Formats: sequence, structure tokens, C-alpha cells
Amino acid sequence: MSTLIEVPAGLAGVAVADTAIGDVRGSEGFYHYRGVDATELARTNSLEQVWALLLDGDVGSAEGPKDFASRLRSDRLLPDPLPPLLAAIAAGSAGDDALNLLRTAVSAAGTTLALRPLWDGSEDTRRRDVVQVAALMPTLLAALHRLGNGQDLVPPRDDLGHVAHYLYVLRGEPAPEAHVDALSRYLISTVDHGFNASTFTARVVASTGADAAATMVAGIAALSGPLHGGAPSRVVQMLDDIGSIQGADQWLADTLERGDRLMGFGHAVYRGRDPRSELLRETVLGLVDTADDRGRALVELAVAVEQKALAALAERRPDRPLMTNVEFYAGVLMDVVGLPRELFSATFAVARAIGWSAHVLEQTRDRKIVRPAARYVGPQPSATAVS
Amino acid sequence: MSTLIEVPAGLAGVAVADTAIGDVRGSEGFYHYRGVDATELARTNSLEQVWALLLDGDVGSAEGPKDFASRLRSDRLLPDPLPPLLAAIAAGSAGDDALNLLRTAVSAAGTTLALRPLWDGSEDTRRRDVVQVAALMPTLLAALHRLGNGQDLVPPRDDLGHVAHYLYVLRGEPAPEAHVDALSRYLISTVDHGFNASTFTARVVASTGADAAATMVAGIAALSGPLHGGAPSRVVQMLDDIGSIQGADQWLADTLERGDRLMGFGHAVYRGRDPRSELLRETVLGLVDTADDRGRALVELAVAVEQKALAALAERRPDRPLMTNVEFYAGVLMDVVGLPRELFSATFAVARAIGWSAHVLEQTRDRKIVRPAARYVGPQPSATAVS
Repeated sequence: MSTLIEVPAGLAGVAVADTAIGDVRGSEGFYHYRGVDATELARTNSLEQVWALLLDGDVGSAEGPKDFASRLRSDRLLPDPLPPLLAAIAAGSAGDDALNLLRTAVSAAGTTLALRPLWDGSEDTRRRDVVQVAALMPTLLAALHRLGNGQDLVPPRDDLGHVAHYLYVLRGEPAPEAHVDALSRYLISTVDHGFNASTFTARVVASTGADAAATMVAGIAALSGPLHGGAPSRVVQMLDDIGSIQGADQWLADTLERGDRLMGFGHAVYRGRDPRSELLRETVLGLVDTADDRGRALVELAVAVEQKALAALAERRPDRPLMTNVEFYAGVLMDVVGLPRELFSATFAVARAIGWSAHVLEQTRDRKIVRPAARYVGPQPSATAVS
Repeated sequence: MSTLIEVPAGLAGVAVADTAIGDVRGSEGFYHYRGVDATELARTNSLEQVWALLLDGDVGSAEGPKDFASRLRSDRLLPDPLPPLLAAIAAGSAGDDALNLLRTAVSAAGTTLALRPLWDGSEDTRRRDVVQVAALMPTLLAALHRLGNGQDLVPPRDDLGHVAHYLYVLRGEPAPEAHVDALSRYLISTVDHGFNASTFTARVVASTGADAAATMVAGIAALSGPLHGGAPSRVVQMLDDIGSIQGADQWLADTLERGDRLMGFGHAVYRGRDPRSELLRETVLGLVDTADDRGRALVELAVAVEQKALAALAERRPDRPLMTNVEFYAGVLMDVVGLPRELFSATFAVARAIGWSAHVLEQTRDRKIVRPAARYVGPQPSATAVS
């Protein structure tokens, strides 16, 4: 038997790859994409620019910013054979499972596009494939949602950016610029965040040389796990349960007394501030002026509950209080810009798939399959078969 | 920045988990399931017995062998809403991509079954879910194949074992016992083989608490990569190209002279004999008496080509000759028992999913998400955003 290399459970702290895509500095409350502060990118750049930066290390991108935006406009169009298949997938839905429907739809889209294994392709064809699958995801999600609700598909438009187009094909009417900007900030700030389970899964699948859809399908599969995080609807559900600012203190006290968790606080990597929560708080506050009454009330409730929850958490654990995480304001933001709650997690996948496209491309440059080992701890072999 | 733990590329030799399911002793040319020689299990046990052994550490299984076989008989039935969805999936096919269609179908089946996250379940419900998804896969595959060829679905039968039933619902008539036994040996001998990329992927997804379908979909995605191996049709294609025993020497010499690889030789873990190739050689030789002329000719060609290829490989690399691997006879076996060539890789997935069911169950006992790290090697952050 060869000697096994021992590592911590869950591969915590184990450097499984070199990456130039980004880094999370948990103790500093800071993360970046290719050396640029990610929250600053979200405030000042378009999703198209940040996507190109992730892929190529340059906001201009290898093919030029206009060409990349133009590529996305054609990549996001549904291939002809897909609509009836999407209708069948949506009809098989048991309800609040948009992320799983998206997984099926991306898998089906991969077959329809007749993607080649990434192993076969040049850097250019690999880049084209990963971008196409990720670019298609918002269209797939909007189509599944509309078909599942008995609505017609919205014909695509050629004059909208990627984020505006997502909202457009979902709702059938152009979204206010403030909504597009806010959703863009959310998406940009969540495209990438280290070697979490879904990004790692997409990279392991990429290491086998599988096609671009296979890598994204596997990423979505990992993202669907409750331990992964990224379920912003839980926070909005919590705010619904709390109901009013007046009742918040009592609700929080009761919940903590029962030993239940508050949604939207604490993070495995950020022990202090999560820079994403600060960006998103600022962003939802910026939506108040243009929000309707319900939206304004939700933002005000969220801000108040955050303060009260932080105080209650600090009182219970003064040595190590939990801080607000990315989920807290993500659901509020998506709610105010008009996304249906059942699409929150799948919209997170839309963002993360952009990061996966860069990770998959990076992983496939190194033609080495990921094949770990394990420590066998069961009964030792005897010479005889059972029965 | 916290200190990163350095490991070899591709996690080679890194013990990512403890397992009691099985072990591969590459240098000894030996592998086992729960302490029992896997090739002996294939010779002497049913697939149902081996599956129960993998899950529970006992061929009798926690619920008793008859109950487990009975559970498989109901688990393998298509849920009502699936057939029209499978028809739509099959209609979206671009041809020789059964593995990708199976990925879509398993994803859709997970939604139809309204599976709960494994994180929510007891050991019993988790075991039920992983077995159900894996048990459904042969039925899904047969249905996709028939629907894609304009054939009706074959009504299920209650009096056939799992392997016999797969061949039955694929072909619409009972398979000869010799075919069932041979296919059973292939499936048993390939259900598990260490922490290869697909098994590891399924475990990473399981570590997030996702549902059983998510774990299997991700496993299939990894299995579809050309670097993963498991494409037995390539060997049969090679035998077709060679055409006759008379032409084999010249074909092999020409191919090696060009620097091209021979299909079915060499393995990342077995440096010497692959015990699976010996089992499968013995098994296909046992099929000769009942095979038709085409099948007999294929077996005879395969045996002759193997000998000639081994000789040619040893002559070129006397220091380290390549040995026959599992793929060499796998395709021949599947061909002779009547499986269409385009289903070979997906049938390998049917086998591997049985192993994944045990690995996912084992992984979920340890409620720890897999979240590795990476070494950031890109430009260091500056304070200013781009553009």
C-alpha cells in the first residue's frame, strides 16, 4: 500500500489548485477578482465587464468589450429545439424547485447544443462553450418560470444588457434602471467566492474533460445543498415571520431562546464583516426612493431587524458575535427588484455560473484529472467470497 | 492570510475521506468491496446482493435480501409524470449521447420524485432515496433509448432480477440467462473503484446536503469526461477498424508507429494486471458457446488482438509494458449480450451509480461540507477599481 497524505476533514485549508481568478481574505473582510476589490467592481462596472475580467484578466476582454457583450446577446438566445423541452420540464415541477428545474434545463441545453468535451477543444472553443452555457442560464430560468405559470415566452431583445435582459424576459416589460443596477450589483458581488463546494465541483468535473454543460450541471447540483448556503429566500421568509419592527425584539429573543438559528448571520470564512452584506445594504437603501410601499416597508424592516439581531447576537456571544452575511440583504434586494421568491436561489446560480465559466476554463488548461484517495477503514479482505 | 496546506496536483494520494466501502490495491492487482474480493463477488453473487453489501456491509442487507430485491422492483418503476418528459428529452437528442440524456433524465426524475435534501433525512430515508435514484437509472436509460428510436415503452415485469429487467425493458423480450449472468458480472465488477473523479464528485455534492438526484447527476457529469475513462465503445470501434485477425499485426504496428494510443490498455492505478480485465475475458469466453456468429467472431478477434497488442506494447516498452484494462473486454461483453453500442458508457454509469449510492450514504453520515482552498497566484489587489 502506498502512503496516504493526511489532510483536514472537508479539505479545509487544502490548496487544491492555483488560481488567478480571485481570492477571499476572510480575516480582512475582503475579497477580490483578479486583484480588484469585488465590491468596488459591483459599484462601478457592468456584469459584462466583470465577466470578461474573470475570464481574461482584463475588463476589456481578449475580444474587446463590445464583442463580448455582443457574444452574450447571441449566446443567451434559446436554441430552437429547447422551448418544447423546457415546457415539459416545467410541467414536471412539484413546485418550489427552480434550482432543480434549472439543473435539468442546463443539462438538456447541453445536449441540444451538441457541445463537445472541453478536452477536445482549443482555448477559444472552450471559452465559447463555457460562456454560452452560463449566458443561457437566465433565459432558461425565465422560460421555465413563465412556462410553469402558463405564460408565453417573451421574445428576446437585442438592445438590453445581460442583467436588464434577464428581468425583461422574466417579466415581459423593461425593468426600471434602478432595478437593473441593483440586481447587477448583487450578481457581480456573488459571481465568485473562493473554492466553495459548487465551484470546486465544477472544477473537478472540468478536470475530466467533460463538456461545459456537465460542469455547470454539477455546480448547480452542489449549490442545491442546504449546507452550501445561498438560499436568500430564507431571510425574506424570516422577515415575513417577524412581520413588523415592533414585534422584532420579542421574535428574536424567542427564536434565540429556543436555540434556533437566525437566517443571514455568520459565515464560514468571514469571521468579521462580510463585505458583500455592506454592499447589498447600501444597495437596497438606494432602492427605497423608487420602491413601492411594500418594497420600502421590507427594506425598513430588514435594516431594523439587522440592527436588533446583531445586538441580540452580541449580547449572547460577546466573545464572538455573528455578523451579517451576504444572504441577509440578497433576498430583500431580489424581492424589491421584482424577482419571484422561488427564483432567488436559482438567480444566485445564474451569478455563480459566471464564476464557474472562468474556473472551468482555468481548470482545463491543466490537463490533469482530480482523483483523490481515501483511507480504507472497513474489514480487511479475506481470501473467500461471501455466500 | 492563513497558511495553506500543499498537496500534489489532482489530489493524487490525498486521503480525502475515511471509507469502509472498498479499496483498490493497485500494486497488488486487487480490489475489494467491504473486504471481499470484487471479482469473486461478481462470479458468485447477484447484483442485488452486492448492492446490499456495499450499502450495509452485509450481503443480506439491513432489511434482508428478499426485502431489498423487492424494494428494487418497485424503485425501478417509472413515476407517472416521467414518460412524456422522457420523450421530450429523447427528442432533443443529437445522437450518440446517451450518457448526457441520462443525466437530464435523472435530474428530471429527482424533481418528479420531489426528493428532499439528504441533509433533512434520517439514515433510512437517505438510504431509500439514493437506492431509488440508482435503481431507476436502467429504466430511464432503456426508456430514453426506445423513445428515441420511436419504440413504445416496455411494461415492467415483477418476476425479473435487476439485471434481467434492464435487458428486458430495453429489448422487450427476456434475455438468455447467459447474457444476464455476463452483464451482471460486468456491472458488479464496475460498481466501485476507489475515489475516482465521479465518485468523488458525488461525495462532494452529498457533503452539501443536496438531494440524491443531485449527487447522481453530478456523478454522471464527471463520468462523461474523456479523461475519466469508462468508454468501452472505443475498444469495439478499434476492433471494427482492425477488422480481422489477419490484419491485426499490421494495424497495431501502424498505430503504434504513428504514436496513437491503443484503446483498452494501461490504467492510472493498476501498473500490472487489472483484475477486472481477467474477469471479463473469462466471461466473454464463456459466452462463445451461445453467441451468434457475429458475437463469436468478435470475441475471437478481441482475444487475438489482446495477445498481439500486449506483445507489441511489451516490445516497444520492455521496461514498463501496458496491461489490458477493464475497458478492453467491457465493450465486447456488452456487444455480445445485445446492448446497443451507444448505451455502453451509460450502462457503465448504471453500474457506478450503485457504488455512488453507498458513497453518498457514507458521506452524509459526516455532516461536514467539502470546501477546499486554493493558492491565489494572480495580480495582487490595489485600492482602485478598474475603468
